[in-house]
Amino acid sequence: MQIVDLKTCLETKARAGKITTEHGVIETPVFMPVGTAGSVKALSPDDLIETETQIILGNTYHLLLRPGTEIIQSAGGLHKFMSWSGPLLSDSGGYQVFSLGRLNKINEAGVIFRSRIDGSSHELSPEISMDIQRILGSDIVMAFDDCTSYPATQAAAKTSMELTHRWEARSLQYFRSTEPCYGYRQELFGIVQGSVYPKLRKTSCQTLVEMNFDGYAIGGLSVGEPKQDMYAMTDVVTDILPKEQPRYLMGVGKPEDLVLAVSLGVDMFDCVLPTRNARHGIMFTWKGPISVKAAREKDVHEPLDAECECYSCQNFSRAYLRHLFKANELLVYRLASIHNIHFYNALMKTMRNAILAGEFPQFQTSFYNTYNVNRAGDID
Amino acid sequence: MQIVDLKTCLETKARAGKITTEHGVIETPVFMPVGTAGSVKALSPDDLIETETQIILGNTYHLLLRPGTEIIQSAGGLHKFMSWSGPLLSDSGGYQVFSLGRLNKINEAGVIFRSRIDGSSHELSPEISMDIQRILGSDIVMAFDDCTSYPATQAAAKTSMELTHRWEARSLQYFRSTEPCYGYRQELFGIVQGSVYPKLRKTSCQTLVEMNFDGYAIGGLSVGEPKQDMYAMTDVVTDILPKEQPRYLMGVGKPEDLVLAVSLGVDMFDCVLPTRNARHGIMFTWKGPISVKAAREKDVHEPLDAECECYSCQNFSRAYLRHLFKANELLVYRLASIHNIHFYNALMKTMRNAILAGEFPQFQTSFYNTYNVNRAGDID
Repeated sequence: MQIVDLKTCLETKARAGKITTEHGVIETPVFMPVGTAGSVKALSPDDLIETETQIILGNTYHLLLRPGTEIIQSAGGLHKFMSWSGPLLSDSGGYQVFSLGRLNKINEAGVIFRSRIDGSSHELSPEISMDIQRILGSDIVMAFDDCTSYPATQAAAKTSMELTHRWEARSLQYFRSTEPCYGYRQELFGIVQGSVYPKLRKTSCQTLVEMNFDGYAIGGLSVGEPKQDMYAMTDVVTDILPKEQPRYLMGVGKPEDLVLAVSLGVDMFDCVLPTRNARHGIMFTWKGPISVKAAREKDVHEPLDAECECYSCQNFSRAYLRHLFKANELLVYRLASIHNIHFYNALMKTMRNAILAGEFPQFQTSFYNTYNVNRAGDID
Repeated sequence: MQIVDLKTCLETKARAGKITTEHGVIETPVFMPVGTAGSVKALSPDDLIETETQIILGNTYHLLLRPGTEIIQSAGGLHKFMSWSGPLLSDSGGYQVFSLGRLNKINEAGVIFRSRIDGSSHELSPEISMDIQRILGSDIVMAFDDCTSYPATQAAAKTSMELTHRWEARSLQYFRSTEPCYGYRQELFGIVQGSVYPKLRKTSCQTLVEMNFDGYAIGGLSVGEPKQDMYAMTDVVTDILPKEQPRYLMGVGKPEDLVLAVSLGVDMFDCVLPTRNARHGIMFTWKGPISVKAAREKDVHEPLDAECECYSCQNFSRAYLRHLFKANELLVYRLASIHNIHFYNALMKTMRNAILAGEFPQFQTSFYNTYNVNRAGDID
């Protein structure tokens, strides 16, 4: 998979390009809302289009447990099941097995874990993950990796990374030996591990690039490490990864993280933050996040952001949103999610336009001057 | 308020007409979705328009307690607060005080009750209810009545009815002495009481009609009485109420009730049933209600109703809706509510067209032949 029409910032590593899937072209840098269980929480496919979402992410782990692959296969794939006709990326399921699952056994072959829903036993391996992602029919498939937990000693990180490399080699070999279930092309991304150790990260990059994946993700970050480590590892990795292929920083993040990671040459992001925060009334604006549930908003009959073009800002006041939150009205989860996803997409588009105009450094300065990360207090 | 372009069925009392408010014309018979706390649960104003909703209802009781009338007044009324530009009817608050509130005192002046949210003390009277509904800015205002509980002896029903009549006279007198808050016309409906006693119902009709309201509602039904009593009382009342004014049967009901009440000459309805049932997975179809959460739907990759034109049926399968319910995904409450409100509106429109075509009795026969009220089991 090539990233084309590539324009790179002269002062930073920021880059704007395009990647093509059989469900559509994606303009980068791009943010991917997370559709955990076959739904980007509270949003319909129309809402996603309306907020200018280009590609969404589905979670293999969640979909495997519910509704199960048989139902998605009989539906004709996840696109059809959830009525999303745009590009779709699926993760490998590995991360959730470790972070959410009740892990029973991990060995060279793969992992056995219990469902958090009904306690039933399930297995994941490179081959099983590829089979499931073929059934999901995602345009971009992720290799099955061992997401190194944080903190990890260098020795432990190396052991985990080497297991990842063996699993990814198996993922690739098996993936290339199987056919798409629904006729259209699927691409496979490798995932760089190596924790916070630059040497391991370099080794991981080189190993994966030799395997020749269709694109590359940076995994094992945003898992509790200091921000400077996240940025330093991203910087190391983007220096090595092939420039003509997309790079995806997994699980990141806050708006300020996206801006910095774009400056380091990342093309793709995913994170539950905009939708999860929306459901808690934390709304993103160009001046920073605000809590629309705060008492001070109770009679503010103005939108979250007067210049925002999202459906929520075009139609509803902060006072109304606050009221809906206080009254536990279902409508507000959608309105808040629409705004936050629209904001994230607008942020990416603004960065893309700045890169194309040769003005990314100016954008970056202006963003950090205007965006107050602490405006809503601690929003984690 | 006149109901115009009136066409009446020759064999039944069913009628089709039009009523005009300053927020739009309403074609009758009409169903009004309930926007309890300033939101028809899970639906946006755009969803309401998309489902062909003509008029919605707001609850004085809920809005008084939260967000409170000050905030709605500073927003410029409920239309602006909730971004609904179509016709709006508000109830008087009386019914909820009795059914939901913690009633402290009831006397000739009015009622004092405690908030179910924070325990604070509130007062409602004919005059206060009119003031609040002026502030809400509803196109149709309901007189403040005492909703007679069921069962009631004839003596108790008479006492309650007479209090209602005194309260409604005060409502009318006070309403006519006050001005709209936002410049546009508001109309006041009286509410017929009298429990299940034809004699009281007749007295109530005659008393209210002499007061000369803008329209008339039938209250105190669908409160636990046998269906035949509900129909019999409706039949008695619609024989007396002036033909040139709208009649509104409050709190009704199931599709089969709507069809029968239309045959008795009712023009307007409201009920939480379509939205509440939607949130529990009970979906209305022309063959009767179905539970989309049922195991048999798990791999049915077809819409709820293949002929339905709602957004949900046009895009999503029963299997997907069931999955979303099982996964507690917020999206499903909206999709299910869209379908049920669309169904109710389509039912009303079908009845209207049948009346206009002179084919209402045929419609009624066909509906009862096709619609299995017990299809989903007990759906209450």
